[in-house]
Amino acid sequence: MTRSCGKVQVTARVRLEDADDLAEQYTPGVAELAKRVADDPSVLARETVKANSVAIVSDGSALLGLGDQGPAAALPVMEGKAALLKRFADVDAWPICPVSREPDDLVRTVKDLATSFGAINLEDIAAPRCFTVERRLHDELEVPVFHDDQHGTAVAVLAALHNALELTGREPAGTSVVVSGAGAAGVAVTRLLLNAGFSADRLVVCDRRGALHGGRDLTGEKLWLAEHTNRGGAAQGSLRDVVREADVFIGVSAGGLLDEEDIGRMADRAIVFGLANPDPEVDPEAAREHAEVVATGRSDMANQINNVLVFPGMFRGLLDSGAVRVTTRMLLAAARALAGVVGGDLDREHIVPSVFDEALVPAVAEAVAGAAKGG
Amino acid sequence: MTRSCGKVQVTARVRLEDADDLAEQYTPGVAELAKRVADDPSVLARETVKANSVAIVSDGSALLGLGDQGPAAALPVMEGKAALLKRFADVDAWPICPVSREPDDLVRTVKDLATSFGAINLEDIAAPRCFTVERRLHDELEVPVFHDDQHGTAVAVLAALHNALELTGREPAGTSVVVSGAGAAGVAVTRLLLNAGFSADRLVVCDRRGALHGGRDLTGEKLWLAEHTNRGGAAQGSLRDVVREADVFIGVSAGGLLDEEDIGRMADRAIVFGLANPDPEVDPEAAREHAEVVATGRSDMANQINNVLVFPGMFRGLLDSGAVRVTTRMLLAAARALAGVVGGDLDREHIVPSVFDEALVPAVAEAVAGAAKGG
Repeated sequence: MTRSCGKVQVTARVRLEDADDLAEQYTPGVAELAKRVADDPSVLARETVKANSVAIVSDGSALLGLGDQGPAAALPVMEGKAALLKRFADVDAWPICPVSREPDDLVRTVKDLATSFGAINLEDIAAPRCFTVERRLHDELEVPVFHDDQHGTAVAVLAALHNALELTGREPAGTSVVVSGAGAAGVAVTRLLLNAGFSADRLVVCDRRGALHGGRDLTGEKLWLAEHTNRGGAAQGSLRDVVREADVFIGVSAGGLLDEEDIGRMADRAIVFGLANPDPEVDPEAAREHAEVVATGRSDMANQINNVLVFPGMFRGLLDSGAVRVTTRMLLAAARALAGVVGGDLDREHIVPSVFDEALVPAVAEAVAGAAKGG
Repeated sequence: MTRSCGKVQVTARVRLEDADDLAEQYTPGVAELAKRVADDPSVLARETVKANSVAIVSDGSALLGLGDQGPAAALPVMEGKAALLKRFADVDAWPICPVSREPDDLVRTVKDLATSFGAINLEDIAAPRCFTVERRLHDELEVPVFHDDQHGTAVAVLAALHNALELTGREPAGTSVVVSGAGAAGVAVTRLLLNAGFSADRLVVCDRRGALHGGRDLTGEKLWLAEHTNRGGAAQGSLRDVVREADVFIGVSAGGLLDEEDIGRMADRAIVFGLANPDPEVDPEAAREHAEVVATGRSDMANQINNVLVFPGMFRGLLDSGAVRVTTRMLLAAARALAGVVGGDLDREHIVPSVFDEALVPAVAEAVAGAAKGG
């Protein structure tokens, strides 16, 4: 029987070679630390595993591009992420894949985990449940909750967009943007763009039926989007209709929604991010014929916009600063720092750094910790 | 600010040095393993962290000898235990300290953890809640649930008793035993002794008010004990009364309940286990004047009966065999194997092996795995 034991393991940080070690690290020695924690809860976050650990929580209900695969299928994905967190940011992460589906139950389970983890990473939970769970945990927990499909994607996209705007001589306020996709990623990208100075008048979000606007019958997050973008409801119709003349296209939806002609009708020096995996919203080679900057989510192409650029440095910064919440200020600072790592290498094929760039994690972590401290 | 990061860490088992590694261990490569798990759930227990991992779960409601200290105070204790599990049995364990107190909530949380762990260790949960939680999880989960305060203590005591009986020329069926303490440990020790061939006629359990018998107004576990020990209710009165003439005293209760005279009134070549920590039920030096074998829970005295003799080998055996339940047969086999490790060193000062004896964990693990397979 093959037993590979997965992608991560738990190892001891302490010496356990004789009876004295045992007495110190286990009973009776550990009782002293237990009593100190009971007297002063702040000891917990400084002198236990909580200081450096993250729970990676997924119910597998929106796993990768595979849809609802359940918690068991999610486990190997989440432990891969745990391995990445150690490799890139020296964070101790463990995967937790709840069978619970009700938001109340998921919230309760994560609260039960939060004693032994310094931060929570929510991952691949289906919308709209992911919004409810994230919002409640954000409000009710005293450790930061980072939903990678929302926050991680939004930071990576904004960072890439910073550099693409610089290359094409644009400013956020005057740039028109079409976002395709109104799920977790689309909602979070749009929110962060609005906070980064993009104009509610020039930002349009499309779902499968086309542009979101006040004339449509919408609820929940889509209603919020309709109220906070596409001011006046000027943009109506299909994605193909509204992408015409746009400066920027950001696809966080599904493959093959646009063709070369659609990109040809965008503004001069257009910016096209087709992030659906494995098939982007538009063929990248065709898009490159018309657009100035093209990015995808694929590792085999230039300009891969991937959350792994963000989450290691994000958690390093959250843990280092002892932050209790993820804030918009942190996300904006992380995006700016991530964009800055590219530096002098910036060109249309290099709008984001390599994940192996050793400057990346320290830059993001420092930005997040600085924002946590109000710096 | 001191940040010691605790007693354990998570480290990667896989190489992550270039883009190919990343594509293999994370996206898109991990999708293939996720799909295999979705198609065949048995892949989970063979090829993910579940194969070798244990959740150590405590709400801190009965922490060490300190009483209810809450989940935060429990964390350093449970991570010490995680370090021991790695050191002695190469098991990947992570501490989880729920804030939930209701059995329903604790059960739900543990079920949500069970996707990513191959076994559950319950620890330092107050009676009688611990019985309810353990029983429900035993029935409802498809991974083994080991409650160390019950099962671990019972196995360690039975192993020590096997050797003490051999030294004093006794057989279980003819030996009279008094157990002091009717909490988690007392209940589990008594159950296991009955399963190991000790006689319900010659076994008496005492709580703070004295011997349990059918004439007392009892409920729950104590009622069960009264019905299954002290047959005929012959033994009544205080602990001091019933310990007279007894062959064996097993204290899993509180310090200082007996004195030298009480031990003097026991049978010849008496066996006295005073396991309350840090102060045993009777002064060990004084007891040694009258009893043939004296054991305590203290690391600074001979014959330390400690759960660390049991749980590493137990979890190694459970994980190696892929067992889905902890069974009485496993506990009996583990006790017999643990006793056997002492071998030719057996004398009144050596009724249990050292936890550093390299033969210990393999012997217990093999016995548990053998019992799991019906061997």
